[in-house]
Amino acid sequence: MLQGKALIAQGGGPTAVINQSLVGAVQEARRQGAEGIYGAMHGVSGIINEDFVDLSQETDANLELVAQTPCSALGSTRDKPDVAYCQEIFKVLQAHGIGTFFYIGGNDSSDTLRILSEEAQAADYALRCVHIPKTIDNDLMVNDHTPGYPSAAKFVASAFAGVNLDNRALPGVYVGVVMGRHAGFLTAAAALARRYSDDGPHLIYLPERNFDVSAFTNDVMAAHDKYGRCVIAVSEGIHDSDGTPILAKLSAELEKDAHGNVQLSGTGALADLLTDSIKANTDIKRVRGDTFGYLQRSFLGCVSKVDQREAREVGIRAVQYAASARRDGTVTIHRVGDYAVDYQLSALSDVAAKTKVMDASLIAKSATDVTPAFLDYIRPLVGPMDSATRLRAPTLDKILG
Amino acid sequence: MLQGKALIAQGGGPTAVINQSLVGAVQEARRQGAEGIYGAMHGVSGIINEDFVDLSQETDANLELVAQTPCSALGSTRDKPDVAYCQEIFKVLQAHGIGTFFYIGGNDSSDTLRILSEEAQAADYALRCVHIPKTIDNDLMVNDHTPGYPSAAKFVASAFAGVNLDNRALPGVYVGVVMGRHAGFLTAAAALARRYSDDGPHLIYLPERNFDVSAFTNDVMAAHDKYGRCVIAVSEGIHDSDGTPILAKLSAELEKDAHGNVQLSGTGALADLLTDSIKANTDIKRVRGDTFGYLQRSFLGCVSKVDQREAREVGIRAVQYAASARRDGTVTIHRVGDYAVDYQLSALSDVAAKTKVMDASLIAKSATDVTPAFLDYIRPLVGPMDSATRLRAPTLDKILG
Repeated sequence: MLQGKALIAQGGGPTAVINQSLVGAVQEARRQGAEGIYGAMHGVSGIINEDFVDLSQETDANLELVAQTPCSALGSTRDKPDVAYCQEIFKVLQAHGIGTFFYIGGNDSSDTLRILSEEAQAADYALRCVHIPKTIDNDLMVNDHTPGYPSAAKFVASAFAGVNLDNRALPGVYVGVVMGRHAGFLTAAAALARRYSDDGPHLIYLPERNFDVSAFTNDVMAAHDKYGRCVIAVSEGIHDSDGTPILAKLSAELEKDAHGNVQLSGTGALADLLTDSIKANTDIKRVRGDTFGYLQRSFLGCVSKVDQREAREVGIRAVQYAASARRDGTVTIHRVGDYAVDYQLSALSDVAAKTKVMDASLIAKSATDVTPAFLDYIRPLVGPMDSATRLRAPTLDKILG
Repeated sequence: MLQGKALIAQGGGPTAVINQSLVGAVQEARRQGAEGIYGAMHGVSGIINEDFVDLSQETDANLELVAQTPCSALGSTRDKPDVAYCQEIFKVLQAHGIGTFFYIGGNDSSDTLRILSEEAQAADYALRCVHIPKTIDNDLMVNDHTPGYPSAAKFVASAFAGVNLDNRALPGVYVGVVMGRHAGFLTAAAALARRYSDDGPHLIYLPERNFDVSAFTNDVMAAHDKYGRCVIAVSEGIHDSDGTPILAKLSAELEKDAHGNVQLSGTGALADLLTDSIKANTDIKRVRGDTFGYLQRSFLGCVSKVDQREAREVGIRAVQYAASARRDGTVTIHRVGDYAVDYQLSALSDVAAKTKVMDASLIAKSATDVTPAFLDYIRPLVGPMDSATRLRAPTLDKILG
């Protein structure tokens, strides 16, 4: 039985399946006969503004369509509450009789919930807090993987499969910059684009390894010599051995977001810097770069079926834990078969504000590729992709020579 | 009956369905009992290099998979032959007994074929030349639309549908830069992303209209005031009233491609310039920009069914015309119903090196939107898209106020 009315909100960057979790939680709360199911608009900021909608008055038909729609249907926020902010939250929750709070989000949102959970105990406010995981970065501790990642990975793999074919048709060097500040999981997904042995990406640069511009130049020239072309996947978070972002070397006037992080997305600067560097340091003529940007987390119609299903389930499980477990926590995903998962309620402090990065076993010794173990890890998450097939027509003998 | 052996090649930028045309031509040439069906690798450059494959030795099973694969399976080129280049081509064609040439491409490739057709007549070399249309820019004269455009348009519309939802979840200004040097058709496709009346893109800038930075600033502020956010679709080809590309104002050191055109794709500079301009001229805090780049012409798994079917048909029709019509030409697509098309063999000179731009009837008087006539034009080409659905939950009354 859920404590008081239930409130649901979404925080941080949207994903392709974040509304599956919302709908899973709403439907399970209904099934359990919750006395009220509210949604807060734009995450915790909607709580202090009392900006609530009555989710009990949704039809299942509309909810199913919302579940299939990418990006936070309740809106999102980058707000991170301090103690005073939490006191405001409790005032509003109390006025509305809310006793259970579900927050769908990543590292920052889970930390918001940890703060809220601790402050509620300190203030003796009875609030059951359950975090529902999502992040395209796949960087939550404890979890085998996180909802949102498989669909974003499918986008990145589909994009690189396409640019590999494009680069094969019109050879040269292509650099694609992928989201992921500290964790390279999303960039690494580019490896799924390969089918034939000479397919790109031929080089993959992850933030788990230091990036050196001269080594990069040599890598690119060697790959270009070998394949007559070169496709490169680069994480936006690449940095030098001092930890300085490669992008930061571009400009001292970088915008900073509310969490004090350098803004890495929403600019094409890193791709341009890297292509300029290749043009300056090699004699390769055709060099192109793209920054995948916001498309990788929002593109309509690119979704992993496994991701949809699991995102729905973590929403449902969150409500079940809130009703049965006598503690706050975060729903975590654990791989228990090939391929099967199970869910647990883990401590918020085990996940909150922490970042999982790629294990060394997933990164090739060259530091410019992933290992077969990574491909085994990611294949069942992304599922089948469209095939990219080559002609097999035999080459004809030259007559004129 | 086809004259001599048939040769097929692909030129210019790849599309999602260019291999449908290749496979349609190969299969129809087989059905007609062609004495040989060759493919030239990398367009006309593969002819002078005698780089041929024997397409008669493909299985239908593999051809069907190739047809579904984006980007030129035979490779492409930006080469444009002069008279001397044509003489080299004739030498090779003669040595291999080739009497029919099919070239799949856009404006530049059709001009290549026009030159080749004229030079063949001047040299008294019996060569039947048929151009098979493709271009994501949709800028071929005579044609109602061109194969490749509907699938690229679906990518652009799906991308804007996603970023509209993302921008709604985390409000601010978003600028997406779309391919299209002179014709705005692909940028205009962003309008298909709208479903609800306040959906973005809220502003669409096309190369058919002059772009003024101060008018742009005012447009953005007005839209941001009205919607609390603003999504903007911009063509890479926007220019000022003197015809100077807005991107050219960025840097004097712009790379030029083989046709003497400024390189507009493969750099994120225009999106960055426009977002910097908004940040400098307004007090809007969250401003982001993406350049869609090569993804829009190559992304694996984003294709229009109508586009697939028509691309196949223009390949088939090209072979039928080559066998029955006693003249060279280009296959053109004509809309004859709502929705139905028919094909004709038009003169190469009517299409070659010419550029169709958007008619005034398709562009709103504001110059920052399309008209309903454009939506009527494009909807049947792109076909159904995934739905983007909002919650309908009613807002709850505030208690604390």
